[in-house]
Amino acid sequence: MTDYRAPTADMLFALNHLAELPQVCALPAFTEASPVLVASVLEEAARFAGDILAPLNTVGDLIGTRVVGDQVRESSGFAEAYVQFTTNGWPALPCNPEFGGMGLPECVGLATMEMWSAANVSFALCPMLGQGAIEAIEHHASEALKACYLPKMISGEWTGTMNLTESQAGSDLSSVQTKAVPHLDHYKLFGTKIFITWGDHSMTNNVVHLVLARLEGAPEGVKGISLFLVPKYLVNDDGEPGARNDVYARSVEHKMGIHGSPTCVMAFGEKGGALGYLVGEANMGLSYMFTMMNHARLNVGVQGVALSDRAYQQAVHYARDRMQGQAPGMPGKSAIIHHPDVRRMLMLMRALSEASRALCYVTSAAFDHGHKALDPEVRASAMRRAELLTPISKAWSTEVSQEVTSLGVQVHGGMGFIEETGAAQLMRDARITTIYEGTTGIQALDLIGRKVIRDQGAALLSLLEEVDETAVALATDFPAMAASLTAASTEFRQATSFVLIHAGDHEHLASAVAYNYLMGAGTVIAGWLMARSALIAASLRHEDEAFYSAKITTATFYFDQIMPRAQAHFSSVSVAATTMMDLTVEQF
Amino acid sequence: MTDYRAPTADMLFALNHLAELPQVCALPAFTEASPVLVASVLEEAARFAGDILAPLNTVGDLIGTRVVGDQVRESSGFAEAYVQFTTNGWPALPCNPEFGGMGLPECVGLATMEMWSAANVSFALCPMLGQGAIEAIEHHASEALKACYLPKMISGEWTGTMNLTESQAGSDLSSVQTKAVPHLDHYKLFGTKIFITWGDHSMTNNVVHLVLARLEGAPEGVKGISLFLVPKYLVNDDGEPGARNDVYARSVEHKMGIHGSPTCVMAFGEKGGALGYLVGEANMGLSYMFTMMNHARLNVGVQGVALSDRAYQQAVHYARDRMQGQAPGMPGKSAIIHHPDVRRMLMLMRALSEASRALCYVTSAAFDHGHKALDPEVRASAMRRAELLTPISKAWSTEVSQEVTSLGVQVHGGMGFIEETGAAQLMRDARITTIYEGTTGIQALDLIGRKVIRDQGAALLSLLEEVDETAVALATDFPAMAASLTAASTEFRQATSFVLIHAGDHEHLASAVAYNYLMGAGTVIAGWLMARSALIAASLRHEDEAFYSAKITTATFYFDQIMPRAQAHFSSVSVAATTMMDLTVEQF
Repeated sequence: MTDYRAPTADMLFALNHLAELPQVCALPAFTEASPVLVASVLEEAARFAGDILAPLNTVGDLIGTRVVGDQVRESSGFAEAYVQFTTNGWPALPCNPEFGGMGLPECVGLATMEMWSAANVSFALCPMLGQGAIEAIEHHASEALKACYLPKMISGEWTGTMNLTESQAGSDLSSVQTKAVPHLDHYKLFGTKIFITWGDHSMTNNVVHLVLARLEGAPEGVKGISLFLVPKYLVNDDGEPGARNDVYARSVEHKMGIHGSPTCVMAFGEKGGALGYLVGEANMGLSYMFTMMNHARLNVGVQGVALSDRAYQQAVHYARDRMQGQAPGMPGKSAIIHHPDVRRMLMLMRALSEASRALCYVTSAAFDHGHKALDPEVRASAMRRAELLTPISKAWSTEVSQEVTSLGVQVHGGMGFIEETGAAQLMRDARITTIYEGTTGIQALDLIGRKVIRDQGAALLSLLEEVDETAVALATDFPAMAASLTAASTEFRQATSFVLIHAGDHEHLASAVAYNYLMGAGTVIAGWLMARSALIAASLRHEDEAFYSAKITTATFYFDQIMPRAQAHFSSVSVAATTMMDLTVEQF
Repeated sequence: MTDYRAPTADMLFALNHLAELPQVCALPAFTEASPVLVASVLEEAARFAGDILAPLNTVGDLIGTRVVGDQVRESSGFAEAYVQFTTNGWPALPCNPEFGGMGLPECVGLATMEMWSAANVSFALCPMLGQGAIEAIEHHASEALKACYLPKMISGEWTGTMNLTESQAGSDLSSVQTKAVPHLDHYKLFGTKIFITWGDHSMTNNVVHLVLARLEGAPEGVKGISLFLVPKYLVNDDGEPGARNDVYARSVEHKMGIHGSPTCVMAFGEKGGALGYLVGEANMGLSYMFTMMNHARLNVGVQGVALSDRAYQQAVHYARDRMQGQAPGMPGKSAIIHHPDVRRMLMLMRALSEASRALCYVTSAAFDHGHKALDPEVRASAMRRAELLTPISKAWSTEVSQEVTSLGVQVHGGMGFIEETGAAQLMRDARITTIYEGTTGIQALDLIGRKVIRDQGAALLSLLEEVDETAVALATDFPAMAASLTAASTEFRQATSFVLIHAGDHEHLASAVAYNYLMGAGTVIAGWLMARSALIAASLRHEDEAFYSAKITTATFYFDQIMPRAQAHFSSVSVAATTMMDLTVEQF
């Protein structure tokens, strides 16, 4: 695998100009932050990602993880890298200063998460899951639990996990069966969880599990699920880990990718009960999970961006070096980067990487305003925007990363299929991103149901007004782009009207069209951000001709080659395609 | 991995009604064949594929192959299965009766190849490459070589390989450097070949290599390449293998998929020279390779079909059993097959599998007419059709198999990412199909250059006339399908005119638009075959309501959800998208 160099120039472009970082930094919560500080933080993060995490990526894939006795062993080198990661303070970056965090904006945290994920997505999953656990504890746990756990989790001294899935409860958490039985002033937990990312390891001296379980006599379904904190080692009065708790990783899965990330089967209570502490109120577990779901989903979206970008870098590197055939207009043998079809693939990879990055960063900045703006109306409006964009960011960015990482293999030709090259690993690693933290189908249902039908399209139409403003602004310098964006926006409105009008006609309709609606939405909104990028680049071109002219070319390519997909997606929405329900189960 | 049951009903539908098997069987060369015989051959093949080959598919993936000393060892069970494969006479099925073949039509051979590939694509590659070698020898080698090698290769007693690629000569074979030096009445070969499928194994007592090499003093480039036959063991006067020849597998590649197929680095002449026999005339090697390229490409296309179909079967099996969530309109928990978005994925998998099958079988039947029709004009016209459709069959079928096998993982949710489930293996195995035997980019160049521009679209326009006839026939019973097919055909003509008019304007244009032109072409032509299927199914519906109504629903779904992609592909052709060449190499 070739080296990873974080694309800080494009990241800063997306942060400063699309996510409007100066306005985020102007929020009172971020008085310490400034675009200049952020640039230097990202430079430092880029070094760490490239020098420390990226070289371990192949190792993690080849060695994987294993259970030795009662303990998971991570791949070699990971523990040392983790120590450096915490020493440098990276886990604390977006966290609450009250508990030792650095308090930088979420969108800056997301940019660093892109770097960790591109360098080594298996490694990055550990702090990513930890961040979710930190958030859940911070928002919902008692002061005592916060004081005991948060500082060590934010510093990274302890890692955190999310224990949701059981074998019968995947996308549908209402079926959770793990039990919690009162015991003195806390609880004992009994049950088995599967697919627990970084459920155990030997990098730190404690692991803090957040666990969904049912109290005896709790209501059926989602309204009877509570959230518990279950540490691997019980914490002594001095705040240090003491007795081993009754929670063990029983096996790690043999997966298609992310071999460096231990995906554990976790057994709770096989030796008498795992001691756990109720987080917040009983039976509120699922709603607590939802408060941090947005963050986790956006993080997975940016994993898609990360793997796309790394695949792009690797493909460019290969295409520059590999001599094969004679390209049109070139004398003698050419590097394959001169062949138009290889160019097409590289440009497609580049355009989708940049567009999905823009989408995720803009979504994250909306959360910054949604969480920290002073004016409640501004907060509410920003949250509506952020929540509308979250399922699109997650699903579209990860779906396009399937395409981009597969193109990465294709650019390498036969060498792409040979594991030593590294292109195949990126594709294998990317394959999980459309599945975990809510499949694409789940995101599509969230978008069409909770984010569009529920407010009758209000949040979406306010976004489409901005899209149309951009189309107007494009008219002079980029007339073709303007026409294409206007057409796409119109198709998006028509598909939305169709859904709003007809969703009630047929019980299957909304869910049947949800996927194509989401993919069309992602294509248009990411395209809008590319169009805005072109406008900004045109105005800044004199500052850095190479960078900004490439931005304009990439945006133009997006409109030529990617935007036409929106129409294909939306047209299958508006033919009310419920043909899919016509076969009987036996006819399949 | 779930069992594989060959979809003989759909295969026979495609053969009988779309490939028009009765007309193929009416050719004098196939007097022994009849649709009834073919049906019973396919039933037998289905049993062999399901009972013998399919159970070894996971074993091959897990165990892989290895070099022990000078010998490649295949996965356990493969040798025993291969013996049964030859005992049953399967390698001989489409071969020349003069040398022991059964002389069945090529399209029937292709249907069996689909079964072997779906059951166990790693295994299937061995007879598939053998078939290519048989064809090259039959058409170009001396009578002596034919008599010595063909009967044992056709019976399967010996296997055959194709040694083309070298590390500097992948898509561009003009760079081949392996040398052939005259030695007595034959040659000694020196050089290293890579990516040699089934280059060695211990299943048979000989392996017959066909090798591209250069004679000393031969012209540069493609006009200086000759074809040699190099056996692993030299053949004694009694026809049995004797002394070991100087050709050895030095290593096998560590690949993303098809682990059961040994992909060898072959060393020729490390111990003094590998004895080889010139096939046909000197310096004609590349043109000899081209004569069998069509066959190999179509076989790889059908590998795409096969892996799509197996992924579909596995996903349906899982979706019927897996209980999760409450589907719209269903009481209580539902099997996920009742969720509309899962249905969408299954229908997409089904429609793409059936459509790509139809495309490959129709192409193969055109070769049957092209090779065996008595009237030279009929032969020539059928060959034009077959050669037009070959790059489309190869590239489109394998590109859609990427999508289908990935959807197979997605339907399984988190379980799809766990290797034990088997869905991931199908995706990993499929990944090579868009690369070997000519990448999608190479197929696209072949289509746009040799098959469309060279005859100024004549062969294509004759096909589009048939498409339009189908659209007329659809008008009464399937008006929406008729309108959609007419629109797609019009867009296809417009894109073709654009290419014919503007290809000369810019040296990059044809190659820049070739991929999207091919993908649009595949979408429309496969859609046309689905539309024909709907018409045929409507007329036969009374015979088998369940089968034929499903066919109509699948065709309808194709037009709702897949056909709109054609417009997206063609629209990016006609914006003359050469933006891809605008960046400098440094800007990437």
